[in-house]
Amino acid sequence: GNDRAAAAVAARQDTLTKPQGSLGRLETIVAWLARWQGRDTPRLDKVKVIVFAGSHGVTAQGVSAFPAEVTAQMVANFAGGGAAVNQLARAAGAELDVIPLEIDRPTGDFTQVPAMSEAEFLEAVSIGHASVAGDLDLVCFGEMGIGNTTTAAAIAAALFGGKAERWTGRGTGVDDAGLQRKIAAIEKALKLHAEILGNPLKAAAAVGGRELAAILGATLAARQLGIPVLLDGFVSTAAAAPLARLHSAGLAHAMAGHVSAEAGHRGLLAALELPPLLEMGMRLGEGSGACLAVNIVRSALACHTGMASFAEAGVSEK
Amino acid sequence: GNDRAAAAVAARQDTLTKPQGSLGRLETIVAWLARWQGRDTPRLDKVKVIVFAGSHGVTAQGVSAFPAEVTAQMVANFAGGGAAVNQLARAAGAELDVIPLEIDRPTGDFTQVPAMSEAEFLEAVSIGHASVAGDLDLVCFGEMGIGNTTTAAAIAAALFGGKAERWTGRGTGVDDAGLQRKIAAIEKALKLHAEILGNPLKAAAAVGGRELAAILGATLAARQLGIPVLLDGFVSTAAAAPLARLHSAGLAHAMAGHVSAEAGHRGLLAALELPPLLEMGMRLGEGSGACLAVNIVRSALACHTGMASFAEAGVSEK
Repeated sequence: GNDRAAAAVAARQDTLTKPQGSLGRLETIVAWLARWQGRDTPRLDKVKVIVFAGSHGVTAQGVSAFPAEVTAQMVANFAGGGAAVNQLARAAGAELDVIPLEIDRPTGDFTQVPAMSEAEFLEAVSIGHASVAGDLDLVCFGEMGIGNTTTAAAIAAALFGGKAERWTGRGTGVDDAGLQRKIAAIEKALKLHAEILGNPLKAAAAVGGRELAAILGATLAARQLGIPVLLDGFVSTAAAAPLARLHSAGLAHAMAGHVSAEAGHRGLLAALELPPLLEMGMRLGEGSGACLAVNIVRSALACHTGMASFAEAGVSEK
Repeated sequence: GNDRAAAAVAARQDTLTKPQGSLGRLETIVAWLARWQGRDTPRLDKVKVIVFAGSHGVTAQGVSAFPAEVTAQMVANFAGGGAAVNQLARAAGAELDVIPLEIDRPTGDFTQVPAMSEAEFLEAVSIGHASVAGDLDLVCFGEMGIGNTTTAAAIAAALFGGKAERWTGRGTGVDDAGLQRKIAAIEKALKLHAEILGNPLKAAAAVGGRELAAILGATLAARQLGIPVLLDGFVSTAAAAPLARLHSAGLAHAMAGHVSAEAGHRGLLAALELPPLLEMGMRLGEGSGACLAVNIVRSALACHTGMASFAEAGVSEK
C-alpha cells in the first residue's frame, strides 16, 4: 500500500469544511482507495463487478433448497439482465461481467473425494486472475453456485477452526433437516481431508469450488494491479480468505462491503478483522452487497474531491 | 399508509429471481415506499434534500467548538456548492434546497428565556411545512446551526426523560469542559421550562430552534402529501420526534437514514423504534447521512422494478 497517498488524503480531509473526522468511515474509505490505487486523488471512473459461477458435487448431499440446475439458469438470467446484481451494478455505475466455470461439470463431492485436483484448482485460480483488467479503479467479486454456502463454510472451518455448526447457515433457505445435512457434509469433509487442511490453498482445492478459486485468483490479481476490492457476502469472503492465511496483510486491499444474514459471515469478517460497511440482512450473493457498498464509496470520494476547504469557502475554523 | 400498495410490493418480491427475503432490508424499504407513496410500483423520480439553517441563543453558554458566525458561512458554502451535502445530494441524484431561517436573529438563550415564542415557533413550522412540494417521491431534511446539538439534546430529554448526560454529545467536537457546559445548559433549561415540557410542541418551542421547528413542519407536510421521509442525524431526528409523541404512528412514514456518532442518536432512534439503515460514524448533520441512504433506497427500488420473475427467467423454484 502507498502510505504517502493515504497521508495526502488524510491531510486534505482535515482542510475541508466540516469538523475534523465528522464524515466518519467516508474519510477512511477515501484513504483506503488512495493507499491501494497509489493515487493522491483516487478515481472511480471504472468500477466492475465480476460474478463467477460454478457447480458443486456436494449438492448430491441435499445441502441446498434449490436444484443444482438453478446455477446455469441464473447465469442465463444474468445474461438477460434479470437478476438482482444486474440492477445493483447499474445503480452503482458498475459494469458487470459474468464468468461461468465449467458449470456443466460439477466439482467432486467433497464428502467423498477432493472437490478439485491441484490442476483443476489452479486452472480456476488462473481464470479469476486473468479476469481483472488493470484499468479498473475498484472491483467487486460475486458468485453463483447452488451448494456454495456449504463450500464456504467448509473453507471457513478449515482456515479458522471450530465445529461445522459455527460456520453453517441456511444459505438460500434450507429447513432444519437441510441444515443438519449441511453440517454433516462439512464434518465429513473436514475429517476426510484433515491432513491437508493446514495448507490454505490445498484446503481451498479440497473443499472449495471453482467460482471460489476464481475469486481467490481475482483478489490476488487486484492486489498486484493496484485495485481496491469490495468483498461481498459469506461465500466471496471465504473464497478470498486463504490470502489472509497466507499473509497477514493478504486482504489489506479489501474492504467488506457488507455483513450478510448468512450465519457464518459475521464471525468470518471478525476473524479477518474486516468491519463491514453495510448491514442490510441480505443473503443473496451474486456480488449484491458489494455493489450496494459501491454507492457509499462513490459518495465518500465525491465529498473528498468536491468539497471546499475552510480557506476556499471563508468558513471560520474552531 | 396504504396497506394494499405495501402488500402488492411484498407479493411481487416473492416472485423475483432470488430466495424469498434474501434482499433483506432492501425488500422492506420498497414496501415502505409503496405504503407511504400509495403506489403499487413506487417511484424515485424526484428526490429532494432540504437543509434548514437557524441560529441559537444558547451559543452564549459556550456550547460549541465553532463560533456562531459559522452558521451563515456554511449557508454561503451550501450556495457555493462546497459543503459535504452538496456532493452527497448530487451523488444520490437529489436536488438540494437550503432555507435559512432568520439566521441573523438567534433564538433566545433557553437557559434564560424560551428559545421561541409560540408565534415564532409556528412561523418556523409553517416555513418548513410550505417547503415540501407535493411532487416529491422521497425527501430528506438536514440542518445547519451552530449550537443545535445542545438544542436537540434538550428536546430529547424533554420528550423522553433521563438526565442531560444521556442525550449530550460532543457535537462538532467540544472538549471535556465544553461538554460539561452543554450538560449544564441543558439541565438549567429543563428546570427553567419544567412546567411546559410535558407538551411536545411547547417543549420544541421553549428549548428548540427555528431549523428544528421547520423540520417538524416539513416532516408533517410530507406525511400529508404522501412523501416518505429519510431522517438524518441526531438534530434532525430530535426535530421530528415531537410528531411521534403527539401520535404513536406520527413518524411511521419516516425511516432513519443512519445512526450518527453523536452520543444521543442511538438512544433516540431506539426510543422512536426506528432502526437505522446505515452506521458510518458520521456526525456532520446537513442531511449528509440521509443523502447517503438515498443510494440504498434507489438500489432497493431498482431491484424491485428491474428484476425478472422466476417464470420470466425460466429459473426453477425450490
